[in-house]
Amino acid sequence: METILIGIAGGSGSGKTTLADKLVECFGSDEVSIIRHDNYYKRHDDIPFEERTKLNYDHPDAFDTELLCEHIRMLKAQHAIEMPVYDYSQHNRSDQFIVVHPAPVLILEGIMIFAEESLCSLMDIKVFVDTDADVRILRRILRDVKERGRSLDSVISQYLTTVKPMHEQFVEPSKRRADVIIPDGGHNRVALEMLIQRVRSQLAKYREEF
Amino acid sequence: METILIGIAGGSGSGKTTLADKLVECFGSDEVSIIRHDNYYKRHDDIPFEERTKLNYDHPDAFDTELLCEHIRMLKAQHAIEMPVYDYSQHNRSDQFIVVHPAPVLILEGIMIFAEESLCSLMDIKVFVDTDADVRILRRILRDVKERGRSLDSVISQYLTTVKPMHEQFVEPSKRRADVIIPDGGHNRVALEMLIQRVRSQLAKYREEF
Repeated sequence: METILIGIAGGSGSGKTTLADKLVECFGSDEVSIIRHDNYYKRHDDIPFEERTKLNYDHPDAFDTELLCEHIRMLKAQHAIEMPVYDYSQHNRSDQFIVVHPAPVLILEGIMIFAEESLCSLMDIKVFVDTDADVRILRRILRDVKERGRSLDSVISQYLTTVKPMHEQFVEPSKRRADVIIPDGGHNRVALEMLIQRVRSQLAKYREEF
Repeated sequence: METILIGIAGGSGSGKTTLADKLVECFGSDEVSIIRHDNYYKRHDDIPFEERTKLNYDHPDAFDTELLCEHIRMLKAQHAIEMPVYDYSQHNRSDQFIVVHPAPVLILEGIMIFAEESLCSLMDIKVFVDTDADVRILRRILRDVKERGRSLDSVISQYLTTVKPMHEQFVEPSKRRADVIIPDGGHNRVALEMLIQRVRSQLAKYREEF
């Protein structure tokens, strides 16, 4: 019996993280492991700090897809991995890591995960969380201004110059690869219940096998 | 324990009927009952045949929503119903009916079912099958020309004069009410598997109760 990988994608502020977290909460960490795409931002030791701040982090090329694919294959082969930890203050990968143990169900969560064919081909279930752009930017403003202390102007500027164009170029078209589209992510209890039952059936099969 | 109602909506040629049929096939008829919206076209004994042919059948008002809601409430209260049978050659309801027995899971399938708030409020899971308009019209052409012997011109004319405008006015906006959106309907095995597991969990709960 193989481990299954559930990909949960969706734009910034779509509710995909909430959905992924609620799914994980229903089960133990020995049953469901979560990997976050944001942990796999590329290491940039060769580029000075000033230049690193100017890189486009809303582009598929910002991620170390090769390492992520290797880690997923290791987890599917029942080996633990050392998931990198990104240091946002340094705009670079830190030297820390989080050990992720193999589990019957893996969840990969991230904005751009359906934009990479090599990642998609490793996924058994592709869930896209679809939320209107106006609701998404409002959530982003609340999070970045209220929780992270950023100025409204800087949030709006970043949204219009990179987040929105990259969403339209990579995220929205990647919805075509989804098996299931869930409106309103974490707040959609009916869809969450369907996902929970699908995970339960996988866990039951896995237990029978071992 | 209550019966649950799963609504499966989507445009003409979207694959919603295939999805509903595949779901029903997985279970026995004592476990899952299906109701088709098309059976609930209004009775028009008061209007002559010639005029009946000119009515707009791609509009929510073409359906006897009151009777359908009553039938769903009866099934949920564990009473059998007599589902009407529509006679397309007469453009009117026939005098025949099909007895539908109560079951732990009911499926209601139809293009316009999410366009009626009174119907939506009876549904526990709302699934919208979403397929591109070009794929949908190609399927409709194949069905109506090859299987039903209609002329290509008449299919195209009906599509452009009523099916498409009514889709844009009623079906597409009704997608907003969906809990889950399934691209490509009956051919989407990953989504079908999720629905099957959701139904299974309902059947297991139901059996525990009785």
